[in-house]
Amino acid sequence: MAKKDKDAKEQIQKLKARVKKLKEQLAKKDAGKKKVKKPSLVSPLAPKSFPALPEIAGVEFAAAAAGVKYQGRTDVMLAKICEGAAIAGVFTTSSTRAACILDCQAKLKLRGAANSSDGAAIVVNSGNANAFTGAAGQTSVEAVTGAVAEALGVPAARVFSSSTGVIGEPLPHDRIIAKVPELRDALTGGGLELAARAIMTTDTFPKGASAEVAGDGGTIRIAGIAKGSGMIAPNMATMLVYIFTDAKISQRDLQKILSRNVDDTFNAITVDSDTSTSDALIVAATGKTEAAPITDMRTRAARDFEAALRAVMMDLAHQVVKDGEGATKFVEVRVTGAANAADAHKVAMSVANSPLVKTAIAGEDANWGRVVAAVGKSGAKADRDTLTISFGDMVLAEKGWRVPDYSEEAASAYMKQQELVIGVDLGLGRAAKSVWTCDLTHRYIDINADYRS
Amino acid sequence: MAKKDKDAKEQIQKLKARVKKLKEQLAKKDAGKKKVKKPSLVSPLAPKSFPALPEIAGVEFAAAAAGVKYQGRTDVMLAKICEGAAIAGVFTTSSTRAACILDCQAKLKLRGAANSSDGAAIVVNSGNANAFTGAAGQTSVEAVTGAVAEALGVPAARVFSSSTGVIGEPLPHDRIIAKVPELRDALTGGGLELAARAIMTTDTFPKGASAEVAGDGGTIRIAGIAKGSGMIAPNMATMLVYIFTDAKISQRDLQKILSRNVDDTFNAITVDSDTSTSDALIVAATGKTEAAPITDMRTRAARDFEAALRAVMMDLAHQVVKDGEGATKFVEVRVTGAANAADAHKVAMSVANSPLVKTAIAGEDANWGRVVAAVGKSGAKADRDTLTISFGDMVLAEKGWRVPDYSEEAASAYMKQQELVIGVDLGLGRAAKSVWTCDLTHRYIDINADYRS
Repeated sequence: MAKKDKDAKEQIQKLKARVKKLKEQLAKKDAGKKKVKKPSLVSPLAPKSFPALPEIAGVEFAAAAAGVKYQGRTDVMLAKICEGAAIAGVFTTSSTRAACILDCQAKLKLRGAANSSDGAAIVVNSGNANAFTGAAGQTSVEAVTGAVAEALGVPAARVFSSSTGVIGEPLPHDRIIAKVPELRDALTGGGLELAARAIMTTDTFPKGASAEVAGDGGTIRIAGIAKGSGMIAPNMATMLVYIFTDAKISQRDLQKILSRNVDDTFNAITVDSDTSTSDALIVAATGKTEAAPITDMRTRAARDFEAALRAVMMDLAHQVVKDGEGATKFVEVRVTGAANAADAHKVAMSVANSPLVKTAIAGEDANWGRVVAAVGKSGAKADRDTLTISFGDMVLAEKGWRVPDYSEEAASAYMKQQELVIGVDLGLGRAAKSVWTCDLTHRYIDINADYRS
Repeated sequence: MAKKDKDAKEQIQKLKARVKKLKEQLAKKDAGKKKVKKPSLVSPLAPKSFPALPEIAGVEFAAAAAGVKYQGRTDVMLAKICEGAAIAGVFTTSSTRAACILDCQAKLKLRGAANSSDGAAIVVNSGNANAFTGAAGQTSVEAVTGAVAEALGVPAARVFSSSTGVIGEPLPHDRIIAKVPELRDALTGGGLELAARAIMTTDTFPKGASAEVAGDGGTIRIAGIAKGSGMIAPNMATMLVYIFTDAKISQRDLQKILSRNVDDTFNAITVDSDTSTSDALIVAATGKTEAAPITDMRTRAARDFEAALRAVMMDLAHQVVKDGEGATKFVEVRVTGAANAADAHKVAMSVANSPLVKTAIAGEDANWGRVVAAVGKSGAKADRDTLTISFGDMVLAEKGWRVPDYSEEAASAYMKQQELVIGVDLGLGRAAKSVWTCDLTHRYIDINADYRS
């Protein structure tokens, strides 16, 4: 063989060996690569689709992309409410609440504003909370509600606004005002889903719920939307809820019904114990139903209406938890046998907010000892020897210790479910309270530890 | 060129190109590989080494490996305390507290037990909390303290025990009792570090602190150890603290000093807001100092002793936070200007326990808006327009809005520090409170979501 041939052959062999080695190295890299599950874009607890909501006579909706902070999506919603509608609301108890909240509260106290023969409106933006923005915050609220009032021909005192997003930055209200004519022109009775999408921040799904109830002489319809527990990277989660009904009811009665049902619905959910500066729940009743007015709260029709409204509130509240930051489990903490209502609430919230309980749930660990510890720290009256802890229908511990036939396997199997009920019976009295929460996962930290950008 | 030559040349070129491509692919894989920091085995906030602690005349220590749960490490510590020592203690307020806690509290109430001419002992195990174990729990406590009493020739009423670990499982007290003779034979004045190691659960470093104070006619020495904020996978973190001094002081005075300093030290720290069933802090004063007895709390010597004891308590409390589960930052929340002490405490704890504040710190995000929100939700009196928020010496927000010369860059740079001070001035009164906490990181979830094994 010529030297040249030999050299070439050798070179080819060397190169082939080199290729083989590199291929092996590459294969190794691929095999060694940890399979990182990408977080789903939608909560695993989300409903399959947005529900079909009935149109509520007397309310129209529109959404627009004002670029308050987000680009390429809608971030302002407008609801126009007919003349004579009753408006009721409940708001965050935070002592550092946002300018729009203070404005809504002031307006709802004006009897004329909440229950008037004039039209009304709700305008909501995402992307900026207009909270802790000093006097400029109130100026922005007045500018936005004023522009809406003028465009729709309703008094400014009947225009309610909400803002959700970053705290402490001035609201670019000009961008919202510039979109008001477009919003007015786009108003439609069927626009509730668009509105639900426009108020999302980092919510992973739009939230809607509805009910129909047989009134005297006709049907009463209720439809509501909510946002909550998603974060604008990385700012305050805010829960916003708007419910509309065609019921004929006074503002006074509507407010009463709302107030007495909020404790067991929206005030009974917690994702991370951090109360927002901007939570708002507004209900508007247009009176456009063919059914008789609700004037006497003792009638069957009134009770049915209240039950239906409460069901819509509960449904939306649960959807907020199901979109809790990083949530993979939906958990009811069901406290019974408490000495009094305050204690029942304390124990339920102590368990629902315990990071150790919530991380155990995330890890599908049947660590009922942490539930015991959370009961113990709650400050409520509790007695080790009368305490019963159960998961679903399974009693795990009672009379001061785990049950004789305690099965770690059965308890662990239960934890694999997506929806869990943790039962705590204090064995001391008859007060009870259920609250709803989600687990605490890595995703919660991913969402909230990110730099603001 | 011969065809053969040409083929060889082509093949070589092809192979070279193939090698080049594979190299590029490999380089890409390497570049794309996310640099995953393995969690350090020791907290980044740990002191460089265990401190040199003075021997306290009248106390001896030993540690043994009883295999309560862990294998291959010490898990029981024994402290023998000389005749006539004064013993004081404070314990968890949990209503589901462990059997050993109930036993310690009962014994400390016996005046004869806490301040007697007899000897005394402390016996502590890690690996099992003996909590929520019903009547069997008390039986275990009696068995262990009884065995120690017999081996050391001290009354059982002067033997105090603690247990830390899994809740709800029977304590295998026979394993501990079997080691008592070995522990007795190993007792030595210099054994405090061994004791500190034996009570660790998933603590990442043993915790010790000491002080010396000039008494009248001689030196008074104080040395203490603590465990805390590590988890026994995945059970309740428990803080255990034992402090020893050769001071000559009555049980009554020792208890008074302890009780009035615990609120600003151990009760002013929080890792995750989850109070344990088993927290215990015991102080023993042997009276072996050459310095004069402390009988009048108004003397300089008494005040110096109290200050020194408080300093040791504070040092150990801070070490517990620095070993907080997953901690990478040590944070002081310093509240001033509160209307009253209760409000100062509420605001400080609301900020220190806010998951949103703690995740922002983990992400080194200067998200002071979350501090505002945590103040707002605390339930304490607060006014947006008198509130001042500062990070270190930097005022970020005051008079209802961020300061005019607010610098996001400067605030972000501050967050990179390992030790942070978040200042909240409410501008309403003169009450103040500092509490200490750590950040909330992925490691916290890793530690606590693991299956029990």
